[in-house]
Amino acid sequence: MKFCSECGAPTELRQPQGDNRIRHVCSACSTVHYQNPKLVVGAIPEWEDGRILLCLRAIEPRYGYWTLPAGFMENGETVAEAAARETLEEANARVEINELYSFYNLAFTSHVHLLFRARLLDIDFSPGEESLEVRLFAEHEIPWEDMAFRTVRHTLQRYFAERKQGKFSFSIIDFLPPEPH
Amino acid sequence: MKFCSECGAPTELRQPQGDNRIRHVCSACSTVHYQNPKLVVGAIPEWEDGRILLCLRAIEPRYGYWTLPAGFMENGETVAEAAARETLEEANARVEINELYSFYNLAFTSHVHLLFRARLLDIDFSPGEESLEVRLFAEHEIPWEDMAFRTVRHTLQRYFAERKQGKFSFSIIDFLPPEPH
Ligand SMILES: [Zn+2]
Ligand SMILES: [Zn+2]
Repeated sequence: MKFCSECGAPTELRQPQGDNRIRHVCSACSTVHYQNPKLVVGAIPEWEDGRILLCLRAIEPRYGYWTLPAGFMENGETVAEAAARETLEEANARVEINELYSFYNLAFTSHVHLLFRARLLDIDFSPGEESLEVRLFAEHEIPWEDMAFRTVRHTLQRYFAERKQGKFSFSIIDFLPPEPH
Repeated sequence: MKFCSECGAPTELRQPQGDNRIRHVCSACSTVHYQNPKLVVGAIPEWEDGRILLCLRAIEPRYGYWTLPAGFMENGETVAEAAARETLEEANARVEINELYSFYNLAFTSHVHLLFRARLLDIDFSPGEESLEVRLFAEHEIPWEDMAFRTVRHTLQRYFAERKQGKFSFSIIDFLPPEPH
């Protein structure tokens, strides 16, 4: 942030009175521009035979890798609505959103990722604009080496393990930055 | 948003290519300025005798009403860290953050409120800058008519009821806009 979104004047980094953090503050109108974490919300769409719907990404980051349908939550919606909307946009797939399953803190990018269990309502799906391909995977077919994101891989591993046990558990997980190669 | 935070030129409202929503887009550099929901995170600090810590607000909105310690999540922290930080800032109180208890969707304000169960570690608390007073309340002492927010009242009612049952349950609740008076 270099300019004030209210008046267009340059912003400066300083600690506003009564605050304990450095903020972007307008040099002209003194508006404080807070920056806050973003919610990424998605679904784990399961078909009635137990297979899971994954999308092959047609956009960066991670073009050409597989992911669960997910994306930034929009203003004016609930988290369940966001998960259903992302599934519709990325996979043209209709789901019933069930329990919240995974809650990831990625403090190093100021993101919170939420993934919901979901029931795929039909198999009349197709790639949305952000997907190259959409298909159902049984557990033994999951392309573990070609997953787009750690949160997705982690969630699917936990999901299959817990499904075998017959009991799903909600969990909040803190991720540290990825190790350099 | 009236001006581009990257270049200072005026923004306009339009639908970027490949998007399906109206966004604030810079008329000069074409940066799309997304606006996303905000996370408000707090704690339900319980002392060892079962009393709950509440703060009397010294700031608007809801100056002079009681609330649980809570506030906007900051970049670079986890939700549990945010809940502990807000409790420290508003009540100078140290807590151990336990399970996530309440998850509210307030789609009409594009807020998500999260409240954690928490164990108050000592009773050496005092009002922070945003509080007029901080004190412990037993259930029968709770000032139900003077609560600052519906989410706080709803959470405390549920909390006391479930504590009597001996079993706390995580819950996602969608709130509609308040009824006009
Ligand atoms: Zn300004
Ligand atoms: Zn611009």
